[in-house]
Amino acid sequence: MDAATHDYKIRDIGLADFGRKELDIAEHEMPGLMSIRRKYAASTPLKGVRVTGSLHMTIQTAVLIETLKDIGADVRWASCNIFSTQDHAAAAIAKTGTPVFAWKGETLEEYWDCTLDALSFPDGKGGFLGPQLVVDDGGDVTLLIHKGYELEKGDESWVNSASGSHEEQVIKNLLKRVAKERPGYWTRVVADWKGVSEETTTGVHRLYQLAEAGNLLVPAINVNDSVTKSKFDNLYGCRESLADGLKRAMDVMLAGKVAVVCGYGDVGKGCAHSLRAYGARVVVTEIDPINALQAAMEGFEVNTVESTLGRGDIYVTTTGNKDVLTLAHMQGMKDQAIVCNIGHFDNEIQVDALNASGATRLNIKPQVDKYTFKNGSSIFLLAEGRLVNLGCATGHPSFVMSNSFSNQTLAQIDLWANKDAYTAKVYILPKKLDEEVARLHLEKIGVKLTTLSAEQAAYLGVSVDGPYKPDHYRY
Amino acid sequence: MDAATHDYKIRDIGLADFGRKELDIAEHEMPGLMSIRRKYAASTPLKGVRVTGSLHMTIQTAVLIETLKDIGADVRWASCNIFSTQDHAAAAIAKTGTPVFAWKGETLEEYWDCTLDALSFPDGKGGFLGPQLVVDDGGDVTLLIHKGYELEKGDESWVNSASGSHEEQVIKNLLKRVAKERPGYWTRVVADWKGVSEETTTGVHRLYQLAEAGNLLVPAINVNDSVTKSKFDNLYGCRESLADGLKRAMDVMLAGKVAVVCGYGDVGKGCAHSLRAYGARVVVTEIDPINALQAAMEGFEVNTVESTLGRGDIYVTTTGNKDVLTLAHMQGMKDQAIVCNIGHFDNEIQVDALNASGATRLNIKPQVDKYTFKNGSSIFLLAEGRLVNLGCATGHPSFVMSNSFSNQTLAQIDLWANKDAYTAKVYILPKKLDEEVARLHLEKIGVKLTTLSAEQAAYLGVSVDGPYKPDHYRY
Amino acid sequence: MDAATHDYKIRDIGLADFGRKELDIAEHEMPGLMSIRRKYAASTPLKGVRVTGSLHMTIQTAVLIETLKDIGADVRWASCNIFSTQDHAAAAIAKTGTPVFAWKGETLEEYWDCTLDALSFPDGKGGFLGPQLVVDDGGDVTLLIHKGYELEKGDESWVNSASGSHEEQVIKNLLKRVAKERPGYWTRVVADWKGVSEETTTGVHRLYQLAEAGNLLVPAINVNDSVTKSKFDNLYGCRESLADGLKRAMDVMLAGKVAVVCGYGDVGKGCAHSLRAYGARVVVTEIDPINALQAAMEGFEVNTVESTLGRGDIYVTTTGNKDVLTLAHMQGMKDQAIVCNIGHFDNEIQVDALNASGATRLNIKPQVDKYTFKNGSSIFLLAEGRLVNLGCATGHPSFVMSNSFSNQTLAQIDLWANKDAYTAKVYILPKKLDEEVARLHLEKIGVKLTTLSAEQAAYLGVSVDGPYKPDHYRY
Amino acid sequence: MDAATHDYKIRDIGLADFGRKELDIAEHEMPGLMSIRRKYAASTPLKGVRVTGSLHMTIQTAVLIETLKDIGADVRWASCNIFSTQDHAAAAIAKTGTPVFAWKGETLEEYWDCTLDALSFPDGKGGFLGPQLVVDDGGDVTLLIHKGYELEKGDESWVNSASGSHEEQVIKNLLKRVAKERPGYWTRVVADWKGVSEETTTGVHRLYQLAEAGNLLVPAINVNDSVTKSKFDNLYGCRESLADGLKRAMDVMLAGKVAVVCGYGDVGKGCAHSLRAYGARVVVTEIDPINALQAAMEGFEVNTVESTLGRGDIYVTTTGNKDVLTLAHMQGMKDQAIVCNIGHFDNEIQVDALNASGATRLNIKPQVDKYTFKNGSSIFLLAEGRLVNLGCATGHPSFVMSNSFSNQTLAQIDLWANKDAYTAKVYILPKKLDEEVARLHLEKIGVKLTTLSAEQAAYLGVSVDGPYKPDHYRY
Repeated sequence: MDAATHDYKIRDIGLADFGRKELDIAEHEMPGLMSIRRKYAASTPLKGVRVTGSLHMTIQTAVLIETLKDIGADVRWASCNIFSTQDHAAAAIAKTGTPVFAWKGETLEEYWDCTLDALSFPDGKGGFLGPQLVVDDGGDVTLLIHKGYELEKGDESWVNSASGSHEEQVIKNLLKRVAKERPGYWTRVVADWKGVSEETTTGVHRLYQLAEAGNLLVPAINVNDSVTKSKFDNLYGCRESLADGLKRAMDVMLAGKVAVVCGYGDVGKGCAHSLRAYGARVVVTEIDPINALQAAMEGFEVNTVESTLGRGDIYVTTTGNKDVLTLAHMQGMKDQAIVCNIGHFDNEIQVDALNASGATRLNIKPQVDKYTFKNGSSIFLLAEGRLVNLGCATGHPSFVMSNSFSNQTLAQIDLWANKDAYTAKVYILPKKLDEEVARLHLEKIGVKLTTLSAEQAAYLGVSVDGPYKPDHYRY
Repeated sequence: MDAATHDYKIRDIGLADFGRKELDIAEHEMPGLMSIRRKYAASTPLKGVRVTGSLHMTIQTAVLIETLKDIGADVRWASCNIFSTQDHAAAAIAKTGTPVFAWKGETLEEYWDCTLDALSFPDGKGGFLGPQLVVDDGGDVTLLIHKGYELEKGDESWVNSASGSHEEQVIKNLLKRVAKERPGYWTRVVADWKGVSEETTTGVHRLYQLAEAGNLLVPAINVNDSVTKSKFDNLYGCRESLADGLKRAMDVMLAGKVAVVCGYGDVGKGCAHSLRAYGARVVVTEIDPINALQAAMEGFEVNTVESTLGRGDIYVTTTGNKDVLTLAHMQGMKDQAIVCNIGHFDNEIQVDALNASGATRLNIKPQVDKYTFKNGSSIFLLAEGRLVNLGCATGHPSFVMSNSFSNQTLAQIDLWANKDAYTAKVYILPKKLDEEVARLHLEKIGVKLTTLSAEQAAYLGVSVDGPYKPDHYRY
Repeated sequence: MDAATHDYKIRDIGLADFGRKELDIAEHEMPGLMSIRRKYAASTPLKGVRVTGSLHMTIQTAVLIETLKDIGADVRWASCNIFSTQDHAAAAIAKTGTPVFAWKGETLEEYWDCTLDALSFPDGKGGFLGPQLVVDDGGDVTLLIHKGYELEKGDESWVNSASGSHEEQVIKNLLKRVAKERPGYWTRVVADWKGVSEETTTGVHRLYQLAEAGNLLVPAINVNDSVTKSKFDNLYGCRESLADGLKRAMDVMLAGKVAVVCGYGDVGKGCAHSLRAYGARVVVTEIDPINALQAAMEGFEVNTVESTLGRGDIYVTTTGNKDVLTLAHMQGMKDQAIVCNIGHFDNEIQVDALNASGATRLNIKPQVDKYTFKNGSSIFLLAEGRLVNLGCATGHPSFVMSNSFSNQTLAQIDLWANKDAYTAKVYILPKKLDEEVARLHLEKIGVKLTTLSAEQAAYLGVSVDGPYKPDHYRY
Repeated sequence: MDAATHDYKIRDIGLADFGRKELDIAEHEMPGLMSIRRKYAASTPLKGVRVTGSLHMTIQTAVLIETLKDIGADVRWASCNIFSTQDHAAAAIAKTGTPVFAWKGETLEEYWDCTLDALSFPDGKGGFLGPQLVVDDGGDVTLLIHKGYELEKGDESWVNSASGSHEEQVIKNLLKRVAKERPGYWTRVVADWKGVSEETTTGVHRLYQLAEAGNLLVPAINVNDSVTKSKFDNLYGCRESLADGLKRAMDVMLAGKVAVVCGYGDVGKGCAHSLRAYGARVVVTEIDPINALQAAMEGFEVNTVESTLGRGDIYVTTTGNKDVLTLAHMQGMKDQAIVCNIGHFDNEIQVDALNASGATRLNIKPQVDKYTFKNGSSIFLLAEGRLVNLGCATGHPSFVMSNSFSNQTLAQIDLWANKDAYTAKVYILPKKLDEEVARLHLEKIGVKLTTLSAEQAAYLGVSVDGPYKPDHYRY
């Protein structure tokens, strides 16, 4: 790693120029963020605010980081996935002096250390301050602070409990170390912390659970459920990035293959339609009868994973659930089936069980492993079960991320502006802002909107300028 | 009309046998309704309840009517559209002794008389009782009762005001007549009325406006916004029935044509995708930046109606708004452009202005009129601007209507069961029932659901049996 | 029938005005034919030529007939299918004085009598002349003349052989009757006959077989294999008209259904893609490994009919072969499966065997029959196994038929112009004319062609004006 | 380059193990080639035959090379494109002892030297023999031999003429050098040469021109026009590899973009459908009215390049023609438009003119260059105008190439078996072999064929085992 005496840990600072060139291209594709920069360049609503980000350190995220900086924030960043960093993006950011702690192919220990680094703003006296705001993706920073705080409040039950996974133990070890090295640290962090905006379905789900249990420490904004996030990057982003990951990893012909997509939420919808457009026959698995009926109305076979064993060539998990593809499933698959995850955590696939199964593992190239079972049959596992679009390709394209990250930026501004008004619960951005994010992206792609006449607006009972739909509208 | 001394007004009772054959076929395609019949056959939760329905009198609606009767209701029915009745469906229902007042091609005066007939349950003493429950589509029955009641309460301002359309005047005339013939009638109707379930986006919109203004008289259930309604019949129904209407009316080749779809809500989405699948180039018009961005992400050109004049071959309105296609638009269209509406009311297109414009009108066949402007250019208007899928074809297919009507039936049962608990506001069916409606339709099309393990359910924080999603989830 | 003393046999001359209105609409959609009319209006290349047509008597065919007349021909017409006539189209043509012999719902006896009528030009002396040119679809006229001629030449083996079907016997009976009533008639017909242009894959196949056996009596032009025919009306026509036929017959929801398309030639391709666009899951059956691989590359399951029994909801034959769906298949189908044919003859489905099987037959409405087998299971057979798009809807739309019929008209002109040069073999129209037909249809749908520079044309080794491709090019 | 004393020139022999792993994966996806290996393992029909290949040195080609070796051939190989080599594939082949001369990023001088190396079989006495058979892609080897032979025959006109491009001059210089170093070489090569099989539309076009002019020196097999080649790799290959190239080069969001596809042949069809499936709006340009009409029937706007300037975001040439995108076009494009070629030669785009235009060129990363014009507007040119799927990604996937290369292998076997029978003209593989190639690929993707009964085959007039279609059938 290229850390040395600098306040960053990245792969290679020499990649900064290449990163900058790609940043320039990305800015052209991210009109929402660029517009927000222009709008708030003078007022700098986050002036001096300490912001910790834990979100895939890609080129698009670099544009987000520089947007946050442009509107005044003091930013530190880590990735939220051991494989998702684009090293040239990290380098470009580090070179500007923004502390970033991320490289492609971290160990879990390194990953959580990086998360801590991103949380540790030097106080100028050799100690550390925490963030005032957090940009979270999957809730790892939120988890760490909450668990650290719980420990400092005297509840040691969790850190001393048996761990269900290797990663869980890594977190516990880290918390124990911090407890020794920085006594009272998490309490001080919580004292300054004003809010978190969360990017993903999974992270949001955790926040609602925390809030329901009365344990949420700060106001949170659910960015995922902005329409311009969940109905765009989850759906259209995956529609572009799943095949990209599969192609860069395996160069596989998709036409004629049987592809099994586990889950038909927004991510699953994007994946299933993409694979079908390539000429694959897609089988969807679902637990929810409504989503299952949607899949059937779109012409997909809806069946169980078990029913596909022996005929499925490609398996993709998109659920946010665990144990969706089990070891037994993998052992029963057609020879040389490809297995990957684009949902959230790597526990959608039983990777730990696979590694412990006695199957031999042959690394083909980074993020591509061939496991051969004792019966001679083999499967390919991509990105070790982590997000295949980020591990094997470069994540969602810039344009759709501009929508998501415009929501993130507006959420950060909103959290700070309302830091005294908001309480520790989960908020959603108002529909008016949601519409604004969409509006910022229309010109770039040549969309011409129709304007309501005053008479039409009155007939509909809405304002000419929106919002145009009731809150329960589903788009 | 075939009314005579019978308690029905229909086209021809001789069509009853043909209607019954098609009813038998439809039952096979409506597993949700058939399952509800079986489930409530013994308990008859609507036993003796007077139910007035105002909803397109099609084969599918006939299956709904017989379902309501099977679970105990005393039903009277009218159509909610002058062109949407299938005469053989009305005949089959009339023949069973259920009073039905509907035929294809009513005048507006006949239409509103039929609505009153459907509201008028003989009290056995020469007078009339009103319904206890109403099934409404577009809110015409709800409107009539509210306006009648308002008049009886002494507010004559509306019935004496100038009318914006011919239809408005017809309603006022009817109310004045009822006021003379049945003094105090509406007050008695309201006294017995326990609730209404509403089918459409437009009708629901009116209900929310009534409730907001404090004028809603009874509890209402918004059936439209059940997921298994709005995301199914609006979307998948229109995907099948728009082209069906266009083909039966015009036999037009869709491939290679430029089709303009006004609005990209659920109805617009279904229409736009259907037309594209046929090889048409679709231009979408939108007022809402979020829906506009969705259309753009799906590869549609998003532009104004004005920009399409001279190149658009087919125009379809799907908005629920008024004046979407104006007379000026129509005068500027390509020669022999086809114009139709699948949104809600015929005022989406300025039909009145067209009729008053001096254009010559040539009737090609029922529901197909050619208007020739003074400059020699002409357009085809379908179904006089009313719903093209119902006016020119047979509406949505049975299977998708089984979803909508299962929601209707469950809503009627729910309204009656909670008649003492509910207040005069707008309710939505609980998600659990929504999922149940979906579940009832899976087996018919061979869907195999996956079942959550207890451990997975706990991980997600849901019950193994659902509901599976938070209320804000958009599907 | 409305025959009387007139030289036509149709359903009802009173439908002529309605037919004319639809003809006016169709002319707007048939730019190729209208352009040919303009081009040859003065020179009338078929002046006085006796032309017999045997081709579905639809609105589109009416435009073809009037085109042939406009360029000078003396035309008599029959349909080539007992169910395909649009009675108002036939009426409009009859009213102009052109002899037409066709109505929807002929018996087989009536059908072949009509064919003979179309062949019988009054000689003014109480006898009959035959046609100089024939427009054939499926080869029935060609068959009749060849078999009649064979009989007159003394070979009675065929007319006295056992018949494989009822229709075969009808033809034999007719020939025997003609032999009595018009001795030497076929010999005189053949003496005047200069050529035939054939519309369909099946008819063309018969012509090549005749030619190969040395039995073809006249030059023939294979219109089917013009690119602008086989790659357009077979493919894009069926993509529009199959669903139209299914909808008008059954109003069935296609989304979520399993549809089995037998054959993946151009017709099958159009059908399979149409059904999938509606959300059906399509299974293709094929005998040819190349077409099968194409289907698989497009994401279709390719399997046998047997493998679909019990899960297929809709069956469509598109093969041109016989016994594709057998009685045993039908008996094994899911209850209430829909069975139809859009290939060529009704023997693609074993209709005779079905009728003889003891299954009870219930007619739902014209062209829709429900057969219930002894085990209680039933199927719906559409159009008695004849072309479902013509029997249950109105055939292909005008625009695509304008391509096919432009080829037909050019073929008729070509046959007459070369009547002394051509010999009794099967010709294809030159690519230059094929390109010309396409060119005539571009403006109507707004296509802007790019023009080759002289330098580019030289680089490609083609003329700037085309033809642009080698003969073996497949498009 | 890693050449040293070995008989190969490649990037890095150390990549051989990685290449072998990917070869193992590819073999699983290339059932046609593997089946041919098994079938001819014993008889080795190319035993000892010297084969020179000039075809993209990818993983898939490596499987082809090893197939040729397995059936007996003595193989030397070069790539046919300076950017298309996968260095690990070349390494894996080199390591087995097969002479290969190819690396990614050759100069034009190096490229043509490699081609000569691939042609130069050591004769054991310090001199060189030529190949007995050639596998050609684009015709470069064929061109070199023909031009060398022409020069040796005394015609110096071409080598001394002015060159239209830098590459042309490189070839002339090489021929002059060979003339000095190896007098009489080409005459000896031609004496042994028995035939060539050609892969591409462009190369085949050249062969027909040579044959027509009477200059073709050997029998040639047109592999491109095997159905299982042109209708598969051109169409389905590009459908998968174009987006792959665009994504790896630019990570660009395709949804919402306007993409211009120049040409709607098989390659253009694959490209246009792929881009649309991603949500791009596709404009097609065409010179041929038939292909233009096809594009229109599929719902594409067909227009000129000029009409798209200012709105097109992505341009793809697929024509096989030259000067399709001119300098003036590029100067008029929307800022940051992406320009690439997937047709054949880089002269589809005026790259030379672009380089000479004074635009500044910024290399973003290998194969991605940003050109900024004097007015400040810029474009991105991919792969220097050469094939974007090979330059920026890894070419077509293995499965579809298995079809093409099975044809190649069968063509090589056929050329050798008929070396005494064939004359110097262009042959096509018999349809029976075409069907066989398809058949070899069905099982892998689970296709179940239907078998004709003897009666059905007789009805169709074909053999139960095929071939099933007439030669003019277009699929």
